[in-house]
Amino acid sequence: MLAPVYFDHNATTPLDARVLEAMLPFLCEGCGNASSRHDYGRLARAAVDAARQQVAAAVGAHATEVIFTSGGSEANNLFIKGAAACCDQGLLAFSSIEHPCVREPARELQRQGWRLHEIAVDAAGRIDAADYAATLKRQPRLISVMLANNETGVMQDVAALAAQAQTVSGAAWFHSDAVQAFGKVAVDFRTLNAAGVHALTLSAHKLGGPQGAGALIVDKRVELRPLIAGGGQERGLRSGTENVAAIVGFGHACTLVAERIAEMARLEKLRHALEAGLNHLGATIFGAAADMTRLPNTVYFALPDIDGETLVGKLDRAGFAVASGAACSSANPAPSHVLQSMGVDPALARGAVRVSLGLGNTARQVDDFIAVLGDTLYQLRRLTALTG
Amino acid sequence: MLAPVYFDHNATTPLDARVLEAMLPFLCEGCGNASSRHDYGRLARAAVDAARQQVAAAVGAHATEVIFTSGGSEANNLFIKGAAACCDQGLLAFSSIEHPCVREPARELQRQGWRLHEIAVDAAGRIDAADYAATLKRQPRLISVMLANNETGVMQDVAALAAQAQTVSGAAWFHSDAVQAFGKVAVDFRTLNAAGVHALTLSAHKLGGPQGAGALIVDKRVELRPLIAGGGQERGLRSGTENVAAIVGFGHACTLVAERIAEMARLEKLRHALEAGLNHLGATIFGAAADMTRLPNTVYFALPDIDGETLVGKLDRAGFAVASGAACSSANPAPSHVLQSMGVDPALARGAVRVSLGLGNTARQVDDFIAVLGDTLYQLRRLTALTG
Ligand SMILES: Cc1ncc(COP(=O)(O)O)c(C=O)c1O
Ligand SMILES: Cc1ncc(COP(=O)(O)O)c(C=O)c1O
Repeated sequence: MLAPVYFDHNATTPLDARVLEAMLPFLCEGCGNASSRHDYGRLARAAVDAARQQVAAAVGAHATEVIFTSGGSEANNLFIKGAAACCDQGLLAFSSIEHPCVREPARELQRQGWRLHEIAVDAAGRIDAADYAATLKRQPRLISVMLANNETGVMQDVAALAAQAQTVSGAAWFHSDAVQAFGKVAVDFRTLNAAGVHALTLSAHKLGGPQGAGALIVDKRVELRPLIAGGGQERGLRSGTENVAAIVGFGHACTLVAERIAEMARLEKLRHALEAGLNHLGATIFGAAADMTRLPNTVYFALPDIDGETLVGKLDRAGFAVASGAACSSANPAPSHVLQSMGVDPALARGAVRVSLGLGNTARQVDDFIAVLGDTLYQLRRLTALTG
Repeated sequence: MLAPVYFDHNATTPLDARVLEAMLPFLCEGCGNASSRHDYGRLARAAVDAARQQVAAAVGAHATEVIFTSGGSEANNLFIKGAAACCDQGLLAFSSIEHPCVREPARELQRQGWRLHEIAVDAAGRIDAADYAATLKRQPRLISVMLANNETGVMQDVAALAAQAQTVSGAAWFHSDAVQAFGKVAVDFRTLNAAGVHALTLSAHKLGGPQGAGALIVDKRVELRPLIAGGGQERGLRSGTENVAAIVGFGHACTLVAERIAEMARLEKLRHALEAGLNHLGATIFGAAADMTRLPNTVYFALPDIDGETLVGKLDRAGFAVASGAACSSANPAPSHVLQSMGVDPALARGAVRVSLGLGNTARQVDDFIAVLGDTLYQLRRLTALTG
């Protein structure tokens, strides 16, 4: 039996039925290799080109600025390693709360001689202004700061940070991981680019699109070395036979993004109700001080003396799918590096549970969740009292 | 209108309807992130694990030797760059007929200080024994020789080459691109590994599976650095949210591989009929001297004084989808590097056309093709005579 209530939309979203419908013709007979010079190939090529227009339109970019990849992790690696391979070695600065798929390629560069600086965040999860200013004075060559954090939902004012970087350290390329922001809030590459953002990472499966497609949106002044070299697809920046169906799905999901964003006002109300219930149960809500700049759908919390993993298991059995820490690194049992960077007490951080709401969720589900959580806490605490 | 006869199965194969059926549950609601620790996530994880078993079983490997990637190009890049990053710099030897997704990452290594040697092939497209022996004496650290060539269909005796490498230059890792062989002839990693092959590249869309999935099958003694680092999926060797549906499709296609191979005897008869017709029309068939070791489905030919691109266009309009040179690099109008390596006269090489047969093809289609080709040649030659 599947958990009936899915509260883990930051991990992955269900594929929108309309997106699947757009993909199906390319999954049934008749989908060629987009590089082939016959009707089957041209049909595939036209579909990829149309999807490229759709993705570009959804983020205010030009189609020629879109490089399709297999997902967000690949796009982040492509930017970090690909831009670094075209610069002289120097300083790479990234926020201390980046996803591992920014941090790990950065560490790879460090092995090759780059210097790294992890930009500090404050207790609310926002970039620390003093540390950022000091970092810029060191003239980084590459800067990466995410638009929205996957765990806390805290958003950064990336346009302002990029503009500041332009002024102080004009030679840096500024990248932003928009995987969690895109599909939940408006993201406009034209505006960001004007402010000094040179590249954005997107991932289809976070906005009702399929797993297996993502993109790096990149200012053409940025020189990149491909991660995957070969047949020369994607202007030579990403070789490999195109995953036509997934790309078509990504494009179609992008045409529905305004509709998704419109739903966020409703989800934000649910989030407020959820937070009220959590506060009532004595929870700490992480990043709450940054209330004005959090994703509308994300609540990241902990309850004193309750282990996050245990709670997630109990909630799963009670019919609620939620996350403890970031899904992408949940093979790793250490407390969240995001919370550590925010200075959260490790004991409390081990209790972290994330609820991320999405299109199908209802007020009723939120109420039920709070009720079930209350019961679960009562049981867990009684158990502790008995055995403790 | 789509070209009704698809003769380009080496570029990509139609998705098998049974494979699509296996994928659909993971494309409809209910597919989680395989790293999530709730029922949705566990279902996705179980599906990925089952697919890993299926892929492993189809090539006689152990499930722990399978690293899923987004396709063949990524798997080749992962081996070449990933293994090189864990060795001291030295010599990388690869055959001169490798796919660009082996050659291009090799050139990247060259920029970083590696030495490269392109192993020569003879006029039939087989590894030149003398050059290979000389190469081994130079103690390469990495060797890559494909099982079957995508253009000519010529197969190499990779087990013998690897065994020879073991004897002469025991410290080398030997990789083989099995993208074109797998699904057409039996491929057994256990046997190859015993002979000294350490890694194999596979791609799902060449055997009735979906675009967007592939694998590197790799002996665990080979140390690899990931191309895509991050959340730590695939034992840390390939991060990124798994494309569950594509992986499930790849696994299911692997369960049908014996059936595909069984069809090859029939396709080989069609190929012989096709070749008889082509010979009658005065064609040169590339790699024909290697008849015993060619893929059953592939015919690569040229007709004197006929341009390959022109012919492909005419055949497309007449209802036959065939290729001129490798699909993956058909953005590049230079004559095929494979034919150049075989010493084919560039004028003849520019006439190269590939027919690659697959499951749906019939004797009737082959007869029609020869008839249409005869008419087309007559027209093209009359045109040349009139204008020449
Ligand atoms: C902020 C962020 N960046 C990147 C990624 C990786 O994207 P993908 O899952 O498409 O590889 C994720 C996914 O969890 C994410 O949350
Ligand atoms: C021999 C060979 N290797 C590798 C590849 C690349 O595989 P993929 O298309 O899955 O990236 C191809 C595809 O054309 C191929 O023919």
